[in-house]
Amino acid sequence: MDEFATVARLFAPLAAGEAGALGLLDDAAILVPSPGQNLVVTKDVIIAGVHYLPDDPPALVAKKLLRVNLSDLAAMAARPRAYLLGLALSRPVDLAWLAAFAAGLDEDQAMFGVTLIGGDTTAHDGPTVLSLTAIGEVAEGRDLRRGGAKSGDRIWVSGTLGDAALGLRVLRGELSALAGEHRSYLRDRYHLPVPRVDLGRRLVGLANAAIDVSDGLLADLGHICDASGLAATVSVDAVPLSPAARAALAADPGLADEPLTGGDDYELLFTAPSTADAALAGLPFHLTAIGTMGPGSGVALVDATGCPRPVPAKRGWTHF
Amino acid sequence: MDEFATVARLFAPLAAGEAGALGLLDDAAILVPSPGQNLVVTKDVIIAGVHYLPDDPPALVAKKLLRVNLSDLAAMAARPRAYLLGLALSRPVDLAWLAAFAAGLDEDQAMFGVTLIGGDTTAHDGPTVLSLTAIGEVAEGRDLRRGGAKSGDRIWVSGTLGDAALGLRVLRGELSALAGEHRSYLRDRYHLPVPRVDLGRRLVGLANAAIDVSDGLLADLGHICDASGLAATVSVDAVPLSPAARAALAADPGLADEPLTGGDDYELLFTAPSTADAALAGLPFHLTAIGTMGPGSGVALVDATGCPRPVPAKRGWTHF
Repeated sequence: MDEFATVARLFAPLAAGEAGALGLLDDAAILVPSPGQNLVVTKDVIIAGVHYLPDDPPALVAKKLLRVNLSDLAAMAARPRAYLLGLALSRPVDLAWLAAFAAGLDEDQAMFGVTLIGGDTTAHDGPTVLSLTAIGEVAEGRDLRRGGAKSGDRIWVSGTLGDAALGLRVLRGELSALAGEHRSYLRDRYHLPVPRVDLGRRLVGLANAAIDVSDGLLADLGHICDASGLAATVSVDAVPLSPAARAALAADPGLADEPLTGGDDYELLFTAPSTADAALAGLPFHLTAIGTMGPGSGVALVDATGCPRPVPAKRGWTHF
Repeated sequence: MDEFATVARLFAPLAAGEAGALGLLDDAAILVPSPGQNLVVTKDVIIAGVHYLPDDPPALVAKKLLRVNLSDLAAMAARPRAYLLGLALSRPVDLAWLAAFAAGLDEDQAMFGVTLIGGDTTAHDGPTVLSLTAIGEVAEGRDLRRGGAKSGDRIWVSGTLGDAALGLRVLRGELSALAGEHRSYLRDRYHLPVPRVDLGRRLVGLANAAIDVSDGLLADLGHICDASGLAATVSVDAVPLSPAARAALAADPGLADEPLTGGDDYELLFTAPSTADAALAGLPFHLTAIGTMGPGSGVALVDATGCPRPVPAKRGWTHF
C-alpha cells in the first residue's frame, strides 16, 4: 500500500475549492489577492498530549486545529479564505485516524468558507504535532488589533468564559458530581470552540482593540493593556458564566479563578467607547461589558462594590 | 526566568523588516500584496532525527528549514517575501540552541530578503518538530509549475545531484576513505542547500515546467511527468556530479544510484524547448541538459549510447 498516495487522496478533495491550490500537486500554492484586500496570516501548533488528548476524536482535533487559527483571524476582523497543513504524524501512521481527521476538516471548510491549499505530511516516532497556517482577507485599514484600546473604553467579551478549562477537567475525570448535561456541555466547549468570525467583522468601526481569549482572560487582557499602553479594571462578578460553569463553581469554590485564568474559550475580548454601546447591544451575539480601560498598566480586579480583589497568580497558559 | 519573554526577545528582531508583522505581538500578521502580484505559499515540516540530526548546529537547522521552503518558491519563480514559524520544541527547552537557531535565521533573512511575520512556539516531551510557511510573490501569469512540460522539451538540472545524500552518509560516519575535502563538501551540501531563487525567476519565459529536487531526481522528474501527462528519458551519464560525488562513486560503485534517487539537493529541475538553449547557456548558472520529454508516462534511463538502463527501485524519499 502506498501510504503517500492514500494521504494525497484524503486531502486532495479539500483543495478543490481554490484553483491556486493546484490540486496540492505543485511545490506551492498560488493565492490571488482580492482587489483592495490585505492578507491576514496566522499559524498555530498543537501537540498530542499537550493541546489535545491522544484519544480525542480525530474530527474534533481537526476542527479545533482549524478553529483556533480562524479565531486569530476573527480577532483581527479578517474573512477566512485558505489554509495550509503541516503534519508530523506519530508512527505507525493510522490512516483511519487521518481519514476521520480529513473528514472533520471537510465539514468545517463548508462551515467557515475556507479551503486547503497546501502543506506537508511527515511521520516520526514522537507524538503527533499538527500545525496550521490560516490566511484571511481584510480591507485596507479595516483590521482590528490589540494595541488600539483608548482610556475610558469599556471592556467587552463574547459568550461565556471558563467553560473550556472546566471541560478539560471533565475530560480528566474531575467534576464527576456535576450533572451529565453540564459535563457534556463543558467538554464540548473544550473540544470544539466556535471562532467568532462574524462577530469580529461586525466589530470594525465599533471596537478599538480586540484579541481572542486563548490564553485566559487575564493573560489576553494583559496583552491588550501592554500593546495599548493602558491598564484594565475588570469587575469579577460581571464575567459571563455558562449555567454549567456556574454549577461547577457553586459545587467547588476552588474553581472560582477558572473563568479568569482558563484558556481555550476562543471568545472575543474587545474594547469599545461607550458611544458604541447601542450598536453593540443590537448585534446578534451574547456580549457582556466586564470592565474599563484606563491610564496605567496591567489588569486589576474589583468586586461588585468596586473594592479590589486579588489577581490570581496563574495568568493563563505559559508555553513551556 | 520567563522563557516566553526570552523567546519573544529572540524572535522579535527578525520581524523588524515588515510592518505588518506587528512586532509579532498581535493575533496574526497583515501582509499588503504588492500591486499586480499573486502570492505563492508553501509549508514544510522538519523533524529532529528524521530530517536533521539532533546534534546538527542549530543555525544550520534554521537555515535549512528556511531554505527548503525558499526552494519551493524558487521552483515556482516566486520572489521570497515573508515567513511564519511553528516550533514544537523538545523539553527542556534549550534557550542557547534557540538563540543560535534565531541567529541562523537572521543571517539568511539578509541573504534572501525575507522577514519573519508570525508563528507559534510550543514545547513537548517528544522530538523537536519545526514547521515553516514561506510566502512569496510572483506577477500574474509569470509562475512556473510542474505540469507545463511539452513533448520534445529538453530536461535540465542546475548544479550537481547526489551530493546531499552522500553528505548524509558522511555525517553517519560512512565514506571515511574519501578525502577530507570531499567529505566536508558533501556534508555542507546536506546541511546547507542553496535555494535557486534567482535562477527560478530567470527561467520565466524560458522553461515550460519546473520543480525543485527535494525527493530525488527520479521522483521529482516523475512528478513533472505525472503533472504534464508525459514521459521522460534521462541519459544517466549526463547527470551532473560534483568532483566529491565522482570520487565517492569511483571508490564505491554501490553508490551509483545516489544521484538518481538521493533527495535534499534542492537544485532546480526544469524542461524547456530547444529554442531556449542559447538563452539558458547565457545564464550565470551551472545548467546541464540530461534528457528529453516525450509522449507516454514515467521516467526511463538510457546510457551514453542510447541503450536502456534499469531504473533503481528506490525512487527518492517516501514519507512514512
